[in-house]
Amino acid sequence: MTDLLIRNLRPMGAAQTDMLIRKGRIVEIAAGIEAPDMHVEDAQGAIAIPGLVEAHTHLDKTMMGMGWYQNTVGTDLRSMIDNERAARTADRHDPHQQSMRHALALAGNGVTHIRSHVDVDTQNGLGAMEGVLRTREALRDVVEIEIVAFPQSGLMVRRGTAELLDEAMAMGGDLVGGLDPCGIDHDPKGHLDTIFALAEKHGKGIDIHLHEAGELGAFSMELILERTRALGMKGRVAISHAFCLGMPDWNRTEALLAALADLDVPILTTGAPSSAVPAVKRVLGAGIRMGAGCDGVLDTWNPWNRPDMLDRARIVAQKNNLRSDADLALVLGICSTGGAAVMGVSGHGVEVGCNADLALVSGSTLAEAVATGGPVALTVKAGRITGRAGKPVMEAP
Amino acid sequence: MTDLLIRNLRPMGAAQTDMLIRKGRIVEIAAGIEAPDMHVEDAQGAIAIPGLVEAHTHLDKTMMGMGWYQNTVGTDLRSMIDNERAARTADRHDPHQQSMRHALALAGNGVTHIRSHVDVDTQNGLGAMEGVLRTREALRDVVEIEIVAFPQSGLMVRRGTAELLDEAMAMGGDLVGGLDPCGIDHDPKGHLDTIFALAEKHGKGIDIHLHEAGELGAFSMELILERTRALGMKGRVAISHAFCLGMPDWNRTEALLAALADLDVPILTTGAPSSAVPAVKRVLGAGIRMGAGCDGVLDTWNPWNRPDMLDRARIVAQKNNLRSDADLALVLGICSTGGAAVMGVSGHGVEVGCNADLALVSGSTLAEAVATGGPVALTVKAGRITGRAGKPVMEAP
Ligand SMILES: [Zn+2]
Ligand SMILES: [Zn+2]
Repeated sequence: MTDLLIRNLRPMGAAQTDMLIRKGRIVEIAAGIEAPDMHVEDAQGAIAIPGLVEAHTHLDKTMMGMGWYQNTVGTDLRSMIDNERAARTADRHDPHQQSMRHALALAGNGVTHIRSHVDVDTQNGLGAMEGVLRTREALRDVVEIEIVAFPQSGLMVRRGTAELLDEAMAMGGDLVGGLDPCGIDHDPKGHLDTIFALAEKHGKGIDIHLHEAGELGAFSMELILERTRALGMKGRVAISHAFCLGMPDWNRTEALLAALADLDVPILTTGAPSSAVPAVKRVLGAGIRMGAGCDGVLDTWNPWNRPDMLDRARIVAQKNNLRSDADLALVLGICSTGGAAVMGVSGHGVEVGCNADLALVSGSTLAEAVATGGPVALTVKAGRITGRAGKPVMEAP
Repeated sequence: MTDLLIRNLRPMGAAQTDMLIRKGRIVEIAAGIEAPDMHVEDAQGAIAIPGLVEAHTHLDKTMMGMGWYQNTVGTDLRSMIDNERAARTADRHDPHQQSMRHALALAGNGVTHIRSHVDVDTQNGLGAMEGVLRTREALRDVVEIEIVAFPQSGLMVRRGTAELLDEAMAMGGDLVGGLDPCGIDHDPKGHLDTIFALAEKHGKGIDIHLHEAGELGAFSMELILERTRALGMKGRVAISHAFCLGMPDWNRTEALLAALADLDVPILTTGAPSSAVPAVKRVLGAGIRMGAGCDGVLDTWNPWNRPDMLDRARIVAQKNNLRSDADLALVLGICSTGGAAVMGVSGHGVEVGCNADLALVSGSTLAEAVATGGPVALTVKAGRITGRAGKPVMEAP
């Protein structure tokens, strides 16, 4: 079942060869492998890369397949949050069905691992958690899903949210989420103390959304770093967006980067075109783990995001003004091995002994695959074929 | 030949109706038009918009169809310029063939008008001009092409370039181009006096690339405005990129915008994700004409640009953090009627009496067409079908 021979693939763009997969692992890479009675795929010269990793998204939010959502709200964060929570209730939005659609769209297009934030709030309760937990279970052989219990509507400003987050972690949340402790909650100490306490109680890590720009974001980041150090959480706290790292003061951000590296705090980026963002080469150069994600897709927030990590790699490259072949390959690395490192996945590579989690992408080089995009030819998860020509093998509900 | 009935289209996203086209014009829009003996197309509910306008590109630069170009140069402007000029000579790059490929890719995907800068320099001479002029002639029934004679490698720093620009204008250039008079030429007075004198001599307008950021760009912009006013060139000078309008000092940029509006100087944007750019709603709000373009596509500069104005509309929207349906429709407008206004095209619309220059795009609303992109279902130029499903009807060489 998990034995597979792939002929004529090019590992990381190198010369064509064959790959033998057995029991979910890569056991041999060589030209002209003989393997009678085995399922054989012809990669036709496609490039094999480690499975793409969608390291920052919101599986519970998408409205894929529900018709176009006409967005009439403003672009300030609070309006978007309140609008979404109301829409969720009004639209008979089914978080299980929707997260299945979203996760399968990703899995069909090269993605083998997903980290998803999932809304927890006092209006819609734990419905989104229940739905995405069911999806994680239903897709356990298709794509690995990590769940961040996420107080999207605020934590201190909505009494009862902390208790719900606690329940969400007991139900199976993998990480505790957080959000703009100053900008949204107006109580950075209260917010951060709460999420760090929950992480400690459940023995889990943290992944916090930090949209706050400039000095405000730097202040919140320092409070996060302070708690990470004090509570011995080194390597277990991640920061998403981290727009403050895009502020102009080099000395200020250099000190933050040094502290992030010291405490092994990874950064997740979406390459948001309209914001100052952390420069990927600088973050990597500082020795900080870095992954990327598409963020929410076709939801009440994001009309233009797509469930497509090659599209995201292009956006991150454009935002960072990266144009050379080497730099585009680097960005593709962030979207695969980078995200895997953030999620703590070991054996994510295209070498003998690695997990057979692969994406076969089109192009003469890795850079061309990023620049021209297009559907991923074949997705393999633990030796099983999960996607062909950008479409999932399993049908979405 | 130019008579055509299109059934079941939705003008600008309104209710389904039919459209009768005769002699290259829209003569009737009504449900259930009777038109025996006429070619009939079924739009199947697609949205009809005015033809897309690629208002800033470089038809002579693309390497489409020549295999992937492996980019190993840096991202500073001077390296990219010198690298390209050398590559042009080395690669047996045929500007006519390449510009045919590029222009037809656009024409097959909704574009009815193109403004292209074309390199003029002392190494490759007027070869690119000759090639694109042939393309303009070959495609005269397919897409309208405006040519800007463009001193890409610098003007004052390369003796002999001004004379070549003069020749290029005599050969049929529509506008005189220019480029970063401080940043590249290190002689703003010399550069601008030269291109304004050439424009005056040939009775043509100007479209100048201005990448210079912040105060430097503002200084160059003021010199451009000064000459525009002194030489009575109101309405005949355009500025591409204008990154300096993205600088933070609101009062400083407000004064520049007022002067641009007063002298009717249009702005062309690419929504460059890695740069500060003019905010589209602010520019339009100041009463300034604005168009958009994809810039160079698959050339030595730009691995990730595509010949696709819906893709560009999405990039401009993302860069400007525009998410609502109304805002996405506004951006699509910049990519069609906006560019047409910059190019001085009249009758560009989806109403009776307008030119039959149309793109039929997929989606329930204009916003969905921008957000989800995809091939343009049908392109019509002067009543002729020039593209189907994103592909040109005429074969590229
Ligand atoms: Zn997010
Ligand atoms: Zn340009």
